[in-house]
Amino acid sequence: MRIDVLTLFPEMFDGVFGASILGKARDKGIVELNAVNFRDYANNKHNTVDDYPYGGGGGMVLKPEPLFAAVEDLVSRQREEAAPRVVLMCPQGEPFTQRKAEQLAGEKHLIFVCGHYEGYDERIREHLVTDEISIGDYVLTGGELPAMVIIDSVARLIPGVLGNETSAVTDSFSTGLIEHPHYTRPAVFRGWEVPEVLMSGHHAKVEQWRRQQSLLRTLKRRPELLERVELTDKERLWLEQQRTEK
Amino acid sequence: MRIDVLTLFPEMFDGVFGASILGKARDKGIVELNAVNFRDYANNKHNTVDDYPYGGGGGMVLKPEPLFAAVEDLVSRQREEAAPRVVLMCPQGEPFTQRKAEQLAGEKHLIFVCGHYEGYDERIREHLVTDEISIGDYVLTGGELPAMVIIDSVARLIPGVLGNETSAVTDSFSTGLIEHPHYTRPAVFRGWEVPEVLMSGHHAKVEQWRRQQSLLRTLKRRPELLERVELTDKERLWLEQQRTEK
Repeated sequence: MRIDVLTLFPEMFDGVFGASILGKARDKGIVELNAVNFRDYANNKHNTVDDYPYGGGGGMVLKPEPLFAAVEDLVSRQREEAAPRVVLMCPQGEPFTQRKAEQLAGEKHLIFVCGHYEGYDERIREHLVTDEISIGDYVLTGGELPAMVIIDSVARLIPGVLGNETSAVTDSFSTGLIEHPHYTRPAVFRGWEVPEVLMSGHHAKVEQWRRQQSLLRTLKRRPELLERVELTDKERLWLEQQRTEK
Repeated sequence: MRIDVLTLFPEMFDGVFGASILGKARDKGIVELNAVNFRDYANNKHNTVDDYPYGGGGGMVLKPEPLFAAVEDLVSRQREEAAPRVVLMCPQGEPFTQRKAEQLAGEKHLIFVCGHYEGYDERIREHLVTDEISIGDYVLTGGELPAMVIIDSVARLIPGVLGNETSAVTDSFSTGLIEHPHYTRPAVFRGWEVPEVLMSGHHAKVEQWRRQQSLLRTLKRRPELLERVELTDKERLWLEQQRTEK
């Protein structure tokens, strides 16, 4: 897979593209990662990439020409026949989900477009991008961090990227419930003990305790998740008891 | 404000802490940013920070000792009397919102704890951290990117951090609606024209068009947001018409 990021701050990606999972995926040749400054495509003497909005008002708006030119150049350099997905990072976009990550992980070429403070000229949305994504309803200074978040979640799904270090512990959403508590050594730390059942060696009891803790924690923190999960009748009954006792 | 991040991958933060808004806030002395490798606090000969889970199962669990030692060392080096907020990045945490960003922006000292692949020993959650936050329901390889997202959203709220570059364009959630379209020069790009009203010079008409586009786009993309917004009776009627015409 090839991933290009169009940004005015390519240096922001250095640490993240070089470290941990993404760095390893890059070293293994599984993912090609490339941060491109689209100011290089500004076809005017001052290298201007933004301009005042028509109709007035504060703020600046990213011009269409540099971004169209950058995407077209990146596409022309690819041998792939398939058109890339061009993903615009913006607060108005579709909320990002694990499902969307799985969808993007099946692509050969992704191009992320990151604005910074500025708005986007509407013609970029209408005629250049294929997806508009938001990672959450909070205000950030640019699309760079959201692009990194999406790239991380997508890259870890590509076969060969994750090694043995991954496990059930990481896959927090695999059961649709919030995870049960984890404990490791020491058995007593500053007087706080590990629950006895975990040291009992009784596998079935450990599993039951973990499932119940997971259900309880989901009930307490994210009850809306329980509606989407398959539970046994016995579990539903037990949860109902916990709910009334609360 | 002082922000410390406890991580096994401090180099991931280099690009982000040095660039753009965070880099400027740091240079101006408004925010002190510090990525600390908590492996330096592992008090054992192999510098081990994780261990096998009690009760069995795959994956590793972060041990309590290094994180407790790291937080206590950071606190002891501060002159502040007030205890810091210790924020654990985890998928089970409270979903991050703009409101939470505003709350954190009022603090003097924040410490972020970032795991990577591993689970956290439960005693870390119970006795060390004050907040557990998730930035969204998608799986990432570590807490580093979520910490960067939160730090960015918090830092931009601190007085003096944002300069003139900020504006209504950036503050996407200020009206509670999705933003209206923006246009800038050229008036015609590849045959695609800027809407006439924006070039009319008629301020009231421009405002009306923008408000209507904003309402329409919210109706189309995020209808649930409309329930939380104050609208005039006329606007409600108009939206109802659009909804039935859809």
